[in-house]
Amino acid sequence: MNPPTDHASPGARIAVDAMGGDHAPASIVAGVVEAARAFRSRVEPVLVGDERAIRAELDRTGGAGLGLEIVHAEQRVEMDEGGADSYRRKKDSSLNVATRLVRDGGAVGIVSAGNTGAMVAASLLNLGRIPGVQRPAIATLIPTQANRWAVMLDVGAAADCKPIHLFQFGILGEVYARVLLGIARPRVGLLNIGEEPTKGSDLAQEAHALLVASGLHFVGNVEGKDILHGRADVVVTDGFTGNVLLKFAESVWAWGVSAVRREIGEHLLAKMGAYLLKPSLRRFKDSVDYSHQGGAPLLGVNGIAIIGHGRSSPKAIRNALRVAADLVERGILGEIRTELERVNGGKVASS
Amino acid sequence: MNPPTDHASPGARIAVDAMGGDHAPASIVAGVVEAARAFRSRVEPVLVGDERAIRAELDRTGGAGLGLEIVHAEQRVEMDEGGADSYRRKKDSSLNVATRLVRDGGAVGIVSAGNTGAMVAASLLNLGRIPGVQRPAIATLIPTQANRWAVMLDVGAAADCKPIHLFQFGILGEVYARVLLGIARPRVGLLNIGEEPTKGSDLAQEAHALLVASGLHFVGNVEGKDILHGRADVVVTDGFTGNVLLKFAESVWAWGVSAVRREIGEHLLAKMGAYLLKPSLRRFKDSVDYSHQGGAPLLGVNGIAIIGHGRSSPKAIRNALRVAADLVERGILGEIRTELERVNGGKVASS
Repeated sequence: MNPPTDHASPGARIAVDAMGGDHAPASIVAGVVEAARAFRSRVEPVLVGDERAIRAELDRTGGAGLGLEIVHAEQRVEMDEGGADSYRRKKDSSLNVATRLVRDGGAVGIVSAGNTGAMVAASLLNLGRIPGVQRPAIATLIPTQANRWAVMLDVGAAADCKPIHLFQFGILGEVYARVLLGIARPRVGLLNIGEEPTKGSDLAQEAHALLVASGLHFVGNVEGKDILHGRADVVVTDGFTGNVLLKFAESVWAWGVSAVRREIGEHLLAKMGAYLLKPSLRRFKDSVDYSHQGGAPLLGVNGIAIIGHGRSSPKAIRNALRVAADLVERGILGEIRTELERVNGGKVASS
Repeated sequence: MNPPTDHASPGARIAVDAMGGDHAPASIVAGVVEAARAFRSRVEPVLVGDERAIRAELDRTGGAGLGLEIVHAEQRVEMDEGGADSYRRKKDSSLNVATRLVRDGGAVGIVSAGNTGAMVAASLLNLGRIPGVQRPAIATLIPTQANRWAVMLDVGAAADCKPIHLFQFGILGEVYARVLLGIARPRVGLLNIGEEPTKGSDLAQEAHALLVASGLHFVGNVEGKDILHGRADVVVTDGFTGNVLLKFAESVWAWGVSAVRREIGEHLLAKMGAYLLKPSLRRFKDSVDYSHQGGAPLLGVNGIAIIGHGRSSPKAIRNALRVAADLVERGILGEIRTELERVNGGKVASS
């Protein structure tokens, strides 16, 4: 099979940080090659990073003939280094080069599975915020009992939030649920530790008041137990609580499997049961697997910015590119601008 | 079987709020009767609440002959009413009467499965705090992958915390892990959204500095994914994050079961598998079930105060009484006082 070398892809140009992630550049390049083969009419990936290393991976994965564009970047941000100041410390990191590419119109979006703090800083400082947005937020999808997804944000961009930030997260999340999930009028809930408006932290109580007056379809406080139940399509919270919750949720599967294995022990019938149940459990696991959603967008910056999981597999990268294409095609940036103006005439947003 | 009516129980006198909880007084009285039958040498329950209703339940459960003491209380705090101000609004609630009983020496502890906010207020205001403790905290047990329990606190007493509060939660949790779980030198971790001391919210960063200097066996920041992994024996966090996390965790089982059921569908072999696996899953569920730990102590007040789950079954109430007895016998109040003085000579604690 000879992939065409002469292509005129009408797809959205998405810069991919080839050097970000635990298995970069190998799994990143592999994922990009998969995406280019699967839906190049929708997305035209631009690989950003060490050119020699990227070419080697393209050769290895058989993607050399695809004619993918490479933009060289001299430096890379490591997973374990402080992310926030890498913007200044490593001017020529693949992240900075990729986000500058978006800023300068060379691409409409970026995908990175690298250091989250560095990705947030590079996106924020190179792309800037959509007018009216005070703090961008990372949105993730949560599989609910209602057999549909919910959006939770922020899950790590903003550890310390003010009420106005949570209010704006409500707007950003509502647009994301509408645009990506196709929910006509998403129910927006505020994560809190009680149902009544007067319950919870000072932050939550003040955010509650703003959300009530927002004109969003605000369904009030939701508690920890309500998230998986699907009581809201959008769960608004600060980046500290959201990040703790997300990482906890990601760890539940491994914990459950090890605990059930311990209970099964040498029980033969139970072992047989586990064997027979395996396909169903596999489907369940796949249905909630992060690699299926591919990545979480950083909402509120001037560009499509998708943050992949640090352990991103090629499949996750491919899906991150698909999500980026979805968001470009559905015009999420314009939708966010419109919604910011609509809600309270932008008054609260700019206060 | 005629239980003795003439008993001289040397057990710890524990006041039980008979009117608190979704199924009060029925399941509360039933649990008390079970406890009195099972380990009255360790605990002497005192039923507090509507005398007529309690007597009716004692008759119904066959506990009338046990000679259990009843202290009448005219009022009860409902599950859905504002808890914090019920202390003043309902002077003669079973909660107030029970905590005053402890204050006046008529009992050494209280168990309630009622309104958590009301329980915290009644305990705080009637019992007072242990000298040096600024904010009491609710501690819960978390089953970890390491096949041992971890303590997490606070899970709902203090929604807004300062660094000094988290520091003190570290002390309270350390004593609880030592006294209840028998861990000689518990590893204390601070829940945060990154491993490095400079990561996370302002609150977490400042608390980190205090805990480093505490003399506790502080293992640094733990992330959401580290909790179930068992990286720390004590997980310190504010009551907002802790409560959201706990309630989320409690909802995972129901969500997983419904999702796996959906995947199993009409697959016959998978159905058989689920059937064969059921005993193991049941043991797993029992091992992580809240009713086994029975209740979560409110640590830092001048008395043993155990908060039961609102849905408390008789078994959960019985176990809450067992935990109360454990804490009395092992002298946790004295241990907390000693530890507060030892850590930094009580300097930080009283600042």
